[in-house]
Amino acid sequence: MERPLKPPRSERTGRSGPTIHDVARQAEVSIGTASKALNRTGHLRQETRDKVLEVARGLGYRANDLAQALHRARSMTVGIISNDSFGRFTLPIVEALEQQLANHGIAIFMCNATDDAEREKQHVDQLIGKRIDGLVVTSRRADERPPVGPLPAGTPVIYVYSQPQDHGALSLVPDDEGGARLAVHHLIGLGRKRIAHITGPERFEAVRLRHQGYANALAEAGLAARAGDYLSGPWTEEWGRMAVARLFDAKGSRPDALFCGNDIIARGALEELRERRIAVPAEVAVVGFDNWNVMTDGARPMLSSVDMNLSELGHEAGRMLLAMMGGERVPVGTRRLPCTLVVRDSSRL
Amino acid sequence: MERPLKPPRSERTGRSGPTIHDVARQAEVSIGTASKALNRTGHLRQETRDKVLEVARGLGYRANDLAQALHRARSMTVGIISNDSFGRFTLPIVEALEQQLANHGIAIFMCNATDDAEREKQHVDQLIGKRIDGLVVTSRRADERPPVGPLPAGTPVIYVYSQPQDHGALSLVPDDEGGARLAVHHLIGLGRKRIAHITGPERFEAVRLRHQGYANALAEAGLAARAGDYLSGPWTEEWGRMAVARLFDAKGSRPDALFCGNDIIARGALEELRERRIAVPAEVAVVGFDNWNVMTDGARPMLSSVDMNLSELGHEAGRMLLAMMGGERVPVGTRRLPCTLVVRDSSRL
Repeated sequence: MERPLKPPRSERTGRSGPTIHDVARQAEVSIGTASKALNRTGHLRQETRDKVLEVARGLGYRANDLAQALHRARSMTVGIISNDSFGRFTLPIVEALEQQLANHGIAIFMCNATDDAEREKQHVDQLIGKRIDGLVVTSRRADERPPVGPLPAGTPVIYVYSQPQDHGALSLVPDDEGGARLAVHHLIGLGRKRIAHITGPERFEAVRLRHQGYANALAEAGLAARAGDYLSGPWTEEWGRMAVARLFDAKGSRPDALFCGNDIIARGALEELRERRIAVPAEVAVVGFDNWNVMTDGARPMLSSVDMNLSELGHEAGRMLLAMMGGERVPVGTRRLPCTLVVRDSSRL
Repeated sequence: MERPLKPPRSERTGRSGPTIHDVARQAEVSIGTASKALNRTGHLRQETRDKVLEVARGLGYRANDLAQALHRARSMTVGIISNDSFGRFTLPIVEALEQQLANHGIAIFMCNATDDAEREKQHVDQLIGKRIDGLVVTSRRADERPPVGPLPAGTPVIYVYSQPQDHGALSLVPDDEGGARLAVHHLIGLGRKRIAHITGPERFEAVRLRHQGYANALAEAGLAARAGDYLSGPWTEEWGRMAVARLFDAKGSRPDALFCGNDIIARGALEELRERRIAVPAEVAVVGFDNWNVMTDGARPMLSSVDMNLSELGHEAGRMLLAMMGGERVPVGTRRLPCTLVVRDSSRL
């Protein structure tokens, strides 16, 4: 029962070979019925079961390890508990996860707990009542939170963009430290010598990790980190404008690059630089974080930014959850997935 | 069976009197079990049923029309099909709807169809397989779309921020025309005589309706609508900047107010006015549409905007769906719910 399950490539991408969807469609039955027939489970009329199997043979459908393992799933449903009010960070994650699971005929229950522990408990109870085959917990912050539960023993649980305080489950989060290093190495590659870091409140783990990545990248390049070049404040455009005013009103030399903790701050910083007629990127290159197109595309010039690859985080969560539902053991603890840098005119020479 | 169902006020707000949640919690059973016991349906041990009823009596819980009607629901689940990739417009709607339904122990299946008809069909089939008690269709545009389906006869369906081409179901959308009139009447109230309208592409019904509201408000105040003061273009900040340049580079008199078709356009317009050192609101007052805080709060000055009250749209959808699930007939066709105006510094004298 515990043998590791490695879905073949085609199953991971869902691109090649007939799927259970194809079988269900041609046999004119629901996905659930096709699944029962193919996995020899549940109650079906023999006639229906035979028809599905005949169609599957005709199409060359081959139940793979994953599909066979999935017959253990009872309800073909998964619950998602979000504390982001279905917000900006949760969206791409849930979208990717939903797609991944839908490809396997699994539907998702979406529950919004908005940081209300009592409401979360009600949702969890309700999901247990629905006999979900797995649970995903996501949030508006990647920070640690109390573990969800209690759940029936053996229910697969994954935290995405969220971490349980007891580290008792798998958690997938973006590699903030690595993302910050990417941005700062890029600015150093442009020949910049004095890179300031304007960022959000330090109570966010992401702020602390991005600051660490910034400091590490400077150290690796032999550049000094000046205390006054690290500015922490609220996640607002106004703070971006204020921080630029503080940096550029000071006597003496000026920064020649800004690495901002998110795109909203970067947007404010770009506006203030523009009003001061400081050329971007010629005099000061700017990179943000989040790669949020609403902010990056309206900015002048268009803003370079670190992308947390939240869709990939959602896809990976789906793959891991399917593996766990198939009986595979996965290591608990936090896994940090790589960010990428999207270069636009604000840092392109 | 067809008698109209009017939930009492306390049931609508969920604020007063013990709820099924209270009963379930105190009886230490799931919502589903409590529901079955209170509605005398489903398979339960007599002991469990008696305990729930005893707790309900102790708490003074009174099953109302709605709760009793809901016993007809089979799965206590509702499906939501979205073509907005769980996006900006869908979010507040789904959040409100989810809350409304969760208060009645109903869970939602969330499906993302991203304008892919084939994928949507798969989702609908899957939801039918899950025996959903109702379906909500929502979208990134309030425009007409092909009706979803086919569904089992009698399945309640509501379109929210979306309209079926055949007008064969209830559709709830914001009153765009009324929202535009609110904005323009407000600007007229400030004493503005020449109000320009910079907006999005005319293929959007919302653009056409907002333009109509703008024209109606001007006509009601006896103001002339100049052809050159209506500018339709893309939904971008750049278009907002370009349109302001076009209006203010022209010879002759200038507009003294701008009503923008969305907040992104208004944001670009405000930036261009700022760069031209045209005082807002003293010389030109500006109002946007959507009341999207990302755009309104970062703007200088903070942007007045029309709010579509999407949460209220979601709540109303939840109320109507519950009524339909309880056997009430609701009129089909499009119902337009009122917008409100949020005044900030860009139009406050």
